[in-house]
Amino acid sequence: MSDDTTIRVSEIFGPTIQGEGALIGMPTVFVRTGGCDYRCSWCDSMHAVDSAYRETWNPMSAEDVMAEVEQLSGGAPLMVTLSGGNPAIQPFGPLIAMGHARGYRFALETQGSVARNWFADLDMLVLSPKPPSSDMQVDWDIFEDCMRVGQGAETVLKIVIFDEADYQWARDVAARYPDLPVYLQPGNHTPPPPEDDTAVVDQEGVDARMRWLVDRVMDDKWYGARVLPQLHVMLWGNKRGV
Amino acid sequence: MSDDTTIRVSEIFGPTIQGEGALIGMPTVFVRTGGCDYRCSWCDSMHAVDSAYRETWNPMSAEDVMAEVEQLSGGAPLMVTLSGGNPAIQPFGPLIAMGHARGYRFALETQGSVARNWFADLDMLVLSPKPPSSDMQVDWDIFEDCMRVGQGAETVLKIVIFDEADYQWARDVAARYPDLPVYLQPGNHTPPPPEDDTAVVDQEGVDARMRWLVDRVMDDKWYGARVLPQLHVMLWGNKRGV
Repeated sequence: MSDDTTIRVSEIFGPTIQGEGALIGMPTVFVRTGGCDYRCSWCDSMHAVDSAYRETWNPMSAEDVMAEVEQLSGGAPLMVTLSGGNPAIQPFGPLIAMGHARGYRFALETQGSVARNWFADLDMLVLSPKPPSSDMQVDWDIFEDCMRVGQGAETVLKIVIFDEADYQWARDVAARYPDLPVYLQPGNHTPPPPEDDTAVVDQEGVDARMRWLVDRVMDDKWYGARVLPQLHVMLWGNKRGV
Repeated sequence: MSDDTTIRVSEIFGPTIQGEGALIGMPTVFVRTGGCDYRCSWCDSMHAVDSAYRETWNPMSAEDVMAEVEQLSGGAPLMVTLSGGNPAIQPFGPLIAMGHARGYRFALETQGSVARNWFADLDMLVLSPKPPSSDMQVDWDIFEDCMRVGQGAETVLKIVIFDEADYQWARDVAARYPDLPVYLQPGNHTPPPPEDDTAVVDQEGVDARMRWLVDRVMDDKWYGARVLPQLHVMLWGNKRGV
C-alpha cells in the first residue's frame, strides 16, 4: 500500500493531555507521522524525521488510522493531534472528513513549509515557524499560503525559543502577523536520541530558560504573548507515548 | 479610609504569567485581596485569608490600585487577575470600569460563595467551588447566583483535586453545569505557612498527583476536561510575587 492516500505513521498514542501551546491540558490522541522536509538542529522527534527510521513508519489507510484512534479513545470523540515529522506532507483530508462525521476534531502541528487544501477542514492549525537556532530557513511565501488555505481553522503561532536571537526573531514574526495568537515555548536542549527515549532531560536548564523567557516577555511588555512550557516533558521527561 | 469603596489589598504583583487554568501562560498583574469567608484545609494563601494578618492588608481606593497596576505594567494594558482570599467580598466595580476605559481586562478567581453585580463587567469569571478535601460546603444557590450575575463574562470552572473523592465530586459538578468549560488542577499538599514563602514544595508528590489525575480523566473518557498544574509552583515553588 503506497498510493497517494497512504499515511506514513510513526506512532499513534494516547489519550493523554496535549502538553504544549493553545490546547495545553486538553485530552488528545496523537497521530505522529514519519518524514520531514526540515532537519532542525534540536529536533526532539528524530525517530519521526530521519529517513534511517523509515522502516519503523507504518503505511496506513485513513480507515486504519481512524480505527486505531477510535480504539484508543474508547469510541468517545476527542481532539486528535496530527504531528510529526511534518504531517503536512501526508494526505490527511479523508481522515479528517471521516473523523468529523464521528464527532472527532483535528489539530495540526506544522512548521508551515507545505500548504495543503485540507488545512481548511482543520479545527486548529498550529503554525510553528522555526527560529534561527534550528538552522532552518522559513519560506514566508509558503508560510502565508498555509495561513491562507487554513482560513477555516482557528490558527495560532507557536514559536520555540532557545536564545535571545530566537526571541527577537519571534518578536518580528508576531509583529508581521498581529492577528495570530502567539505561544512561546522554551526549547529543550536535551532532546532524546531517536533510539533512546529514556535519555535524561536537563529540566532545571529548561525551567531556567522558561523563567528567562517570562522575564524577557515582561520586560518588553509583550502582553499579547503567552508563555508555556512543554508540560509533558516536565511530567514524563522524554518518554514516548504519554 | 474604610468606606464601602475601599479595597483591602494583601499584595499587588507582576506582571508575570498566570500559572493556572484557562489563562495559563498569559501575562497578568495580580491583585490579591485580604479576607475570606472560607477556611480551606489546604489553603495556599493563608496570608490573605487569616485575620491574624489583617494588619498587612492595605486599604486602598480603586484609583490607588489602578495606579499601582499601571506602574507595574509600565502603562501598557494587560489582563488583571483579581484573587484572594475571596476577592468577591471587595468592591471592585469602580476599578473594573476605570481599567476598562484604559484597555485593561479583568479576570476574577472566586469560590462562588458571594455574588456581586460587578461580576457582569468582568472579562473572565473563574469559579472554583471547593471539593470535599477542603472541609468547606458549597452553597449551590449562591454559586448559581454567581453564574447568573456573571453572564456577561466568559465563565469557567476550576476545581482543585486532592483525591478520588474530590475527583468524583468534580465529575458531579461538571455534569451539573455542562455548558461551563472545566479545568482540573492537582492540589498542593505542601502549601506555604503564611509567614514563610520559602517553604519547600513536594513537587514530586504534586507531579505524581497530576499524572494520576491525567490517568483518571483518560480512564473515564472525560475528554471535555482540561488538566493543568500550578505552573508557577513548578517554576518558582511557593515563592510569592512571581
